Amino acid sequence: MTYLWDDPANFADDALTGFCELHADLVRQVPGGAVRRGRPERPKVAVLPGGGSGHYPAFYGVIGPGLADGAVSGNLFTSPSAQDACSVARAAHSGAGVVFSYGNYAGDVMNFGLAADRLRSEGVEVEHVVVTDDIASAPAEESERRRGIAGDFTVFKLMGAAAEEGAELAEVVRIGRKTNGRTRTIGTAFAGCSFPGAAEPLFQVPDGHMGLGLGIHGEPGLRDVPLPSAAELAEDFVARVLAEKPDGAGGRVAVLLNGLGAVKHEELLVLWRHVAARLRDSGHVPVLPEVGELVTSLDMAGVSLTLTWLDDELERLWTAPAWTPAFRRGHITEVRGEETVDEPEAETVGYAPAADSSRRLAEHVVAALRRVETAVRDAEDELGAIDTVAGDGDHGRGMVRGVSAAVEAAERAQLAGAGAGDCLAAAGDGWADRAGGTSGVLWGAGLRAAGEVLGEHAGDAEIAAKAVDALATRIRELGGAEVGDKTLVDALEPFRAALLSATTSSLVEAWGEAATAADRAARDSARLVPRKGRARPLAERSVGTPDPGAVSFALITKVIGDYLTGAST
Amino acid sequence: MTYLWDDPANFADDALTGFCELHADLVRQVPGGAVRRGRPERPKVAVLPGGGSGHYPAFYGVIGPGLADGAVSGNLFTSPSAQDACSVARAAHSGAGVVFSYGNYAGDVMNFGLAADRLRSEGVEVEHVVVTDDIASAPAEESERRRGIAGDFTVFKLMGAAAEEGAELAEVVRIGRKTNGRTRTIGTAFAGCSFPGAAEPLFQVPDGHMGLGLGIHGEPGLRDVPLPSAAELAEDFVARVLAEKPDGAGGRVAVLLNGLGAVKHEELLVLWRHVAARLRDSGHVPVLPEVGELVTSLDMAGVSLTLTWLDDELERLWTAPAWTPAFRRGHITEVRGEETVDEPEAETVGYAPAADSSRRLAEHVVAALRRVETAVRDAEDELGAIDTVAGDGDHGRGMVRGVSAAVEAAERAQLAGAGAGDCLAAAGDGWADRAGGTSGVLWGAGLRAAGEVLGEHAGDAEIAAKAVDALATRIRELGGAEVGDKTLVDALEPFRAALLSATTSSLVEAWGEAATAADRAARDSARLVPRKGRARPLAERSVGTPDPGAVSFALITKVIGDYLTGAST
Repeated sequence: MTYLWDDPANFADDALTGFCELHADLVRQVPGGAVRRGRPERPKVAVLPGGGSGHYPAFYGVIGPGLADGAVSGNLFTSPSAQDACSVARAAHSGAGVVFSYGNYAGDVMNFGLAADRLRSEGVEVEHVVVTDDIASAPAEESERRRGIAGDFTVFKLMGAAAEEGAELAEVVRIGRKTNGRTRTIGTAFAGCSFPGAAEPLFQVPDGHMGLGLGIHGEPGLRDVPLPSAAELAEDFVARVLAEKPDGAGGRVAVLLNGLGAVKHEELLVLWRHVAARLRDSGHVPVLPEVGELVTSLDMAGVSLTLTWLDDELERLWTAPAWTPAFRRGHITEVRGEETVDEPEAETVGYAPAADSSRRLAEHVVAALRRVETAVRDAEDELGAIDTVAGDGDHGRGMVRGVSAAVEAAERAQLAGAGAGDCLAAAGDGWADRAGGTSGVLWGAGLRAAGEVLGEHAGDAEIAAKAVDALATRIRELGGAEVGDKTLVDALEPFRAALLSATTSSLVEAWGEAATAADRAARDSARLVPRKGRARPLAERSVGTPDPGAVSFALITKVIGDYLTGAST
Repeated sequence: MTYLWDDPANFADDALTGFCELHADLVRQVPGGAVRRGRPERPKVAVLPGGGSGHYPAFYGVIGPGLADGAVSGNLFTSPSAQDACSVARAAHSGAGVVFSYGNYAGDVMNFGLAADRLRSEGVEVEHVVVTDDIASAPAEESERRRGIAGDFTVFKLMGAAAEEGAELAEVVRIGRKTNGRTRTIGTAFAGCSFPGAAEPLFQVPDGHMGLGLGIHGEPGLRDVPLPSAAELAEDFVARVLAEKPDGAGGRVAVLLNGLGAVKHEELLVLWRHVAARLRDSGHVPVLPEVGELVTSLDMAGVSLTLTWLDDELERLWTAPAWTPAFRRGHITEVRGEETVDEPEAETVGYAPAADSSRRLAEHVVAALRRVETAVRDAEDELGAIDTVAGDGDHGRGMVRGVSAAVEAAERAQLAGAGAGDCLAAAGDGWADRAGGTSGVLWGAGLRAAGEVLGEHAGDAEIAAKAVDALATRIRELGGAEVGDKTLVDALEPFRAALLSATTSSLVEAWGEAATAADRAARDSARLVPRKGRARPLAERSVGTPDPGAVSFALITKVIGDYLTGAST
């Protein structure tokens, strides 16, 4: 259980603020995360880990000399938005480029990818190091599909040490990817964590069992097995990790024995004895092993073992000093340049003068979005309840956050004289920037694509079909889901198809029919099983419950259809 | 829940060994705990915290330059034995004296007290600093009765810094007592912890409530209250601690916001914002505040707030560097002398030649003790089950540990030619040294007292009554319990009274009658309520269940009675 919070919706932000206040001598809060206080004396590569909150000390707990230059921090278990990543990168950039590093999750990959596009357009050199250490999440031959878990820490540490030594961007990236390529983690969970205010844990493990290979957000693992003794668990863990020893690797290894939250220090110490013995038996030498909490999952009861096979270069970087709130090794002195804090520039949005017709249509766009916001707010609890079955129950909250931001952004654009297309595109940007996560980036990018197609066109059936076509294409492109995967695509595709094949030239009629198709498809999604790797262990139970993303998509199209009907009479 | 262990009975030892292996560069394991690796270059005061296990990083996690010189570590939530304390002190002593520091719990006070007596007899200067920071455990006017909780950490830290500066023993003790006198903690628990292998948590808190003021072993707190928000909890905590601001104290404070185990980093950070704001509002300045896990209780869900009002002297010591496995501040370099590890001398026990009659009686003493051991082993589960109602369920295990050690020690003494009295005294020493905790020290000291009275006398009714009288007096003296407090005294006193007032000269008859009285009294203890402060929140439920200490006392007297009956026929 999580016990302490004020507003559950602000829990992640409140924790970040508390952290930045506590460690004000080391870090400075910026929108979307935190950065080291003070600029480096000379330009240095900014190493920027990031991801959802709830994994402290990942990610902002490791900001400091010898490790990270900043961290991008999303909502609980939700990827930060592209805007979050841009904001942190701009604050941390000192002229030598930035490297984002994060676990391999769809939302993170999309949002950091979009951020990189924006930053490059501003002239910032940006690279990525994606961590894929979780051997339980995909077979070795598909290692690029693996998720990133506690191995994050080792990858960040070695990149941070390289950057601190003055390595250039390409070199820091090389070290990061090399470390990731030699890092393997196996984890297990004994009991689920729970979000602030949630009545139930995110997932459950059967009594007397553990979920071997379960992910740090409750993603499905290998299987449930009876609880082993500490000796048995160590033997199993070490055997699984050693089975994936990289070709040509030697015997010196960095080791993390990581507690996920509620497994306590004494338990980790009991386990460590056996892990160390099994490693020694197999000819391995643990180099400065770390036993403690490095990548947690709120109060999840679980533990993971990470090995990184070192060579001379990696060992030098692993043993290098670091000084951060959560991890301190050796002695390090930070040489800081003059303390100058760049105030973020107030965002001013300008639009090319739009035709009156398009500005009138923009009023409808904003009005329809407001209706959508009301409807989504009304449906928040219901969407959350549906999402609880197979997800983390925050779909309603995330949609409300996104739609509200979209309405605000569209209103601002409208006041600034934007036409309908620009308003819709602004709505998309607002949604993506505020909501984060996967649905945020998909809806955001989709709306922007639709807005760009709409442009200053009139709102007829033909252009609406084209705009929706662009929205659907962009969402498919970014999200990569197929029909039948139990995602919003299951409602999106029938909607697009119905609109594209409409035989009527009446937008109201065509939209109404398409919305009906989306609604039917959303309800039909109840019979589907979520695609592999996407959902949590409760996923199987979700058969019989529709996909929350499909349901909210159908709801939104219905509300817009109702608005169109009303507006046309 | 606790999930990882091998043999639950060895959990604490296994964790200590794992710790010492992990941090072999910093610490060295010795019987009863651990000490810093390497001797100081010059004699320095050895600061030795100690107590039961399960509170990591208390106590051995803070061994290192600028903090502790060693730590005495008992079984889970059980005070270390006097022998443990002596062993650690002998290894850590470098010629400038030692100071034991521990929370104010009966078992710790007794065992460290006995250890000090022994060490002083060996020429070692020994002092004590007892921590009494828990404002919920007794009113301010009885502050010497208060328990020690997270404030332990601050007291150890300041004493460690003083000793590192080269302060003499009296000065280190002065700093420790001054710090304790200016330190106040309030804690709360949301859910109980559980021992390895235990089916149920040690205590429970009603759903949606918290146990305000609950102790770190589940001792009773102030009351159960509905779960507050983070802001409300911070306000309440700060108000309670500030209400006990020491006279003349200023506004600069060392602050610990301590997680007890399952309350996670993000929750502590959310809480910190409010604590910091309330402190600032009241004119206080937190100096290098610590937010994290400093004194835990396995996986207990709970949190505590500790304030230490600083003056110039204390602030200098609080901000001084330290480098330990669990706590690192600033830069510190340890100057070590030559690395010489004194092998503990093999214990050789010698006895004055005993009369043949006494050596024959010694055979009976050993044989009777063996019967007791068998009976206690058979009753282990039953004793454990009784203890679960109001205690931590380890009474059976503790008794088995103690009696087994007593038998071994008595056998060794007998082989070395000891008479009956010396065998009994040796049994007592073995029990106290192996079992630790309160029952260990009481039984151990009681048996030794009985053995000293027995000497080389014959085993008649009169000397048996005198020996039991000495045993009872010693136990009452050390333990301080009254009849009716629901302790072993409730069976002990009727037993003593019956034996002293026996009208028969037959030992078998007199003992049999006394054992019957003890048995009746043990069963009658079911109607008693445990004395205040002794038992856990489940204590009230224990009405209807006899006291496990009284039950085991009655069992032992009955087994000895049966042995006497058999031996006399």
